[in-house]
Amino acid sequence: MTAESVRAEQGQFVSDVAANLHGFLGEQQGTMATISPDVAPLMGSISSLVTGGKRLRALMCYWGWRGAGGEPAHSDIITAGCALELFQAAALIHDDIIDRSDTRRGGPSVHKRFSQLHESEGWALDSERFGHAAAILTGDLCLSFSEEVFTQIGRRAASGTTARRIFNLMRAEVMAGQYLDILEEVAGPVRDRAGAVNRAQSIIRFKSAKYSTEHPLALGGALAGASDELLQGYSAFALPLGEAFQLRDDILGVFGDPGTTGKPAGDDLREGKRTVLVGYAVNQADPADSTYLDTMLGKQDLGEAEVAELRRIIVECGALDATESLIDELSNQAFEALERLPLTDLPLTALRQLAEAAVSRAA
Amino acid sequence: MTAESVRAEQGQFVSDVAANLHGFLGEQQGTMATISPDVAPLMGSISSLVTGGKRLRALMCYWGWRGAGGEPAHSDIITAGCALELFQAAALIHDDIIDRSDTRRGGPSVHKRFSQLHESEGWALDSERFGHAAAILTGDLCLSFSEEVFTQIGRRAASGTTARRIFNLMRAEVMAGQYLDILEEVAGPVRDRAGAVNRAQSIIRFKSAKYSTEHPLALGGALAGASDELLQGYSAFALPLGEAFQLRDDILGVFGDPGTTGKPAGDDLREGKRTVLVGYAVNQADPADSTYLDTMLGKQDLGEAEVAELRRIIVECGALDATESLIDELSNQAFEALERLPLTDLPLTALRQLAEAAVSRAA
Repeated sequence: MTAESVRAEQGQFVSDVAANLHGFLGEQQGTMATISPDVAPLMGSISSLVTGGKRLRALMCYWGWRGAGGEPAHSDIITAGCALELFQAAALIHDDIIDRSDTRRGGPSVHKRFSQLHESEGWALDSERFGHAAAILTGDLCLSFSEEVFTQIGRRAASGTTARRIFNLMRAEVMAGQYLDILEEVAGPVRDRAGAVNRAQSIIRFKSAKYSTEHPLALGGALAGASDELLQGYSAFALPLGEAFQLRDDILGVFGDPGTTGKPAGDDLREGKRTVLVGYAVNQADPADSTYLDTMLGKQDLGEAEVAELRRIIVECGALDATESLIDELSNQAFEALERLPLTDLPLTALRQLAEAAVSRAA
Repeated sequence: MTAESVRAEQGQFVSDVAANLHGFLGEQQGTMATISPDVAPLMGSISSLVTGGKRLRALMCYWGWRGAGGEPAHSDIITAGCALELFQAAALIHDDIIDRSDTRRGGPSVHKRFSQLHESEGWALDSERFGHAAAILTGDLCLSFSEEVFTQIGRRAASGTTARRIFNLMRAEVMAGQYLDILEEVAGPVRDRAGAVNRAQSIIRFKSAKYSTEHPLALGGALAGASDELLQGYSAFALPLGEAFQLRDDILGVFGDPGTTGKPAGDDLREGKRTVLVGYAVNQADPADSTYLDTMLGKQDLGEAEVAELRRIIVECGALDATESLIDELSNQAFEALERLPLTDLPLTALRQLAEAAVSRAA
């Protein structure tokens, strides 16, 4: 019964968010068309990126709102969901440039799309450079859209409100966290190994956990006028959940099935991501394997055999098991905190389902 | 007398904006420090970029406000000025990555600063790539700050107000205009030559004129409750002014003195910028020179002799004269429109001074 109601409400919300995004982007497309038809590919990239995806953040926000007594299908929460989806799209566009990821959800990433446009049109100069430049601008546009939409909420998200404070903090923290992530890629190899796991945990907290689960849930709650106690309870649930979610993501980045993740196998290794998984491996592998890890991480041209060898090291030294244990521990923390929340059956069931999907997913 | 009052008021406003920026960034620095001391260079880059500069946009905004009856030293206009300065800083950070400009105001640009940090710390992997990635994130952070500050204005800039509409449009147009700019660099050589000047004029309208002068002036006016007639009058003045301003910038990008502009000589030629100046040259030069232009534009390694030869072509074919004539024509339009504005002596004098500085500047 409750599961049925969750499904129905969630389906309605997701379709409201999609319709709202469609309407907003349609209006923006109109403005852009008055500037030049040449601008269409920027809008096309944004539209296709906000179509689909797991909508984890929007859903966390929705159930945070409902759990704090917000009405279903209220325009404020739909608008907040759209703003989060647009922010996520902007972050993905820039992330893919930074990580040199040429694929996203099984298709070309935005910068790759622009490079391909350059090549198919036979334009001059460098196609890769053009792709990066165009994607920087597309991400900026999308980031501005996110803000424009968030402001449409009006009174409940005005300057000085808790909701606005959370939205501002979320943006600043995710950008800082992403910086720490790229910093660790380059500085990790020359910093102390013993601190690698701690640093990686701090990175996922800021670049991912707070942004993917904690802040969206709190934002929904704050928009519905949640008490400080409820917001603290939300954090106690969503922060360890988000960390477990990202640890699962890190495992998938090394061991995931490309057919399911939509990303080439071992991409995180080529990228040189210094995840918790890698942090454990660097510390637990024998000296020869540990040196091999340090040498190979971040090599853009890693072949399949090298990826397989790195996986072997990560498994045999116990790093994979250690990460799985940490996921279990954080998940348990999250689920325990969830059961302590003063929620009615519907949001409780919905959050439990979202949490289960987040930590046990394969893509 | 009036000139004296303009100077005093302007000095007060500029120092209020600087103090406000300092306070805001200080608070943000506090938040960032709780994340990690490693994040300090992002904040440092933003702080140094918003210190100094011509503050043209903030000043246009201020006098737009005063011309529409806004009080001097009102916190709303100071806040708006800060938001514009932060937006400009964000745009410059990403612009410099896109244009591969390693210098800004005589010092290293943000991505260069991060590359240098990478090198001086002896970090692993590629320093240039790290620099670009870090600067993308710094620009994103700065763009978010700009929005955060703009929202602090509150009621006068709430969703649905003219001021908010102008701010949203300004952001979208400048990003679209910058895309048209990089598109023309690559697509210009294979598009029809006869249309080159028109396309270049459309680019400067969106990426520069609307953003540097028209929208800031209108924003100030709108915040003070200007009538539609006054806003139209502001546009009639500020749009041609902004175009003339950018045409002057384009000439400086080819003929400017590096000691004054803070940029290497001929940088725009290496970048392959398809400006109005270049559009005239491509059309007016004899076939051999025109082909030489097309071949050399966008070559990153142009030497001094080649830059000198390109300058010769641009001068001898009459492109420089044609651009100067266009600047004169647009300036005249702007000054005539200015004199028709229903302004009191103080804002009128101030806007006249700003306009004169914008079109006759050497840096």
